Amino acid sequence: MKTKLPIALSNKHVHLSQADIDVLFGEGYELTPIKDLSQPGQYACDEKVDLVGPKRTIKGVRVLGPARKESQVEVSLSDGFTLGTEVPIRESGKLDGTPGVKLVGPKGEVELEKGLIAAGRHIHMHTDDAKEFGVEDKQIVSIKTVGERALVFKNVLIRVSPSYALEMHVDVEEGNAAGVKNCDLVELIK
Amino acid sequence: MKTKLPIALSNKHVHLSQADIDVLFGEGYELTPIKDLSQPGQYACDEKVDLVGPKRTIKGVRVLGPARKESQVEVSLSDGFTLGTEVPIRESGKLDGTPGVKLVGPKGEVELEKGLIAAGRHIHMHTDDAKEFGVEDKQIVSIKTVGERALVFKNVLIRVSPSYALEMHVDVEEGNAAGVKNCDLVELIK
Repeated sequence: MKTKLPIALSNKHVHLSQADIDVLFGEGYELTPIKDLSQPGQYACDEKVDLVGPKRTIKGVRVLGPARKESQVEVSLSDGFTLGTEVPIRESGKLDGTPGVKLVGPKGEVELEKGLIAAGRHIHMHTDDAKEFGVEDKQIVSIKTVGERALVFKNVLIRVSPSYALEMHVDVEEGNAAGVKNCDLVELIK
Repeated sequence: MKTKLPIALSNKHVHLSQADIDVLFGEGYELTPIKDLSQPGQYACDEKVDLVGPKRTIKGVRVLGPARKESQVEVSLSDGFTLGTEVPIRESGKLDGTPGVKLVGPKGEVELEKGLIAAGRHIHMHTDDAKEFGVEDKQIVSIKTVGERALVFKNVLIRVSPSYALEMHVDVEEGNAAGVKNCDLVELIK
């Protein structure tokens, strides 16, 4: 069985619905891809928005594309402290009951009623990878890192799809807590 | 054997030598204690300084007292990224070969030649605690946390002294990666 996979640190970012893109950047606006991400079809965009919380504003947060059904804002717990909002840890797309945040773009503002989350750590796997690792979609595993800040992440969610590429995603605080950098190899423990 | 102890998250802070206090705040200046810390004799001060890195400045970083033999600046890896300096993970006081940073106070500036670190995670224990936990000074243990972001910190240094109070210290990124708050109980694993 395979056990090693690469890790990647996700910085704060925003996914937008087309309706919100229209308000923030102008009617019918299309996002400008500037860099492909490791997950097929996903890309960083030239566009940025400001997040306005009850306490403070975080300026210039990167938009990722393509447009999604619902807007979603992924930040760290420290970013939540900066904004003044307690941020729940959620799986991407599971936005019921999450707090909102105000987005400010060059052409308008959107007051999101929900969608502000810290993404729960997870592993993207292609269907073939899942077989090689002997795991399945929605399984919970642990991940071990090495080095000076070695640790074992528990409660790591496996997400399997034929459209995914093999990679563990953590936020910047989790990555720094483990002292890992993008593309470092980590070990899956069942 | 005892296994549970409280954890505390250290935000970025500065320890200063009296010589550096003199330059930053004025000759013979005495720090103003505003809040006792959990370790006996240690306190947060009213004073703050700015950290000036090659890339950016972090303003208003809290000074902790009392004065120390050598100035030492403790930040997170993300703070190091903000400053533009790669920050090594070090035990407090082990400053040989560490990078410097410029400190700016109300009365002057100090260009530290060394002393910028991310503090290695560690556990303070009174001599009596060490007996109850069955561990000794400088021993390396693991620490397990519970909850949604449960994890196991490896490479945790035990520091024993009759002047210490029982507490694990991590930085904010480590604490957020584990989803813990100050005073949460964690479990020591030998």
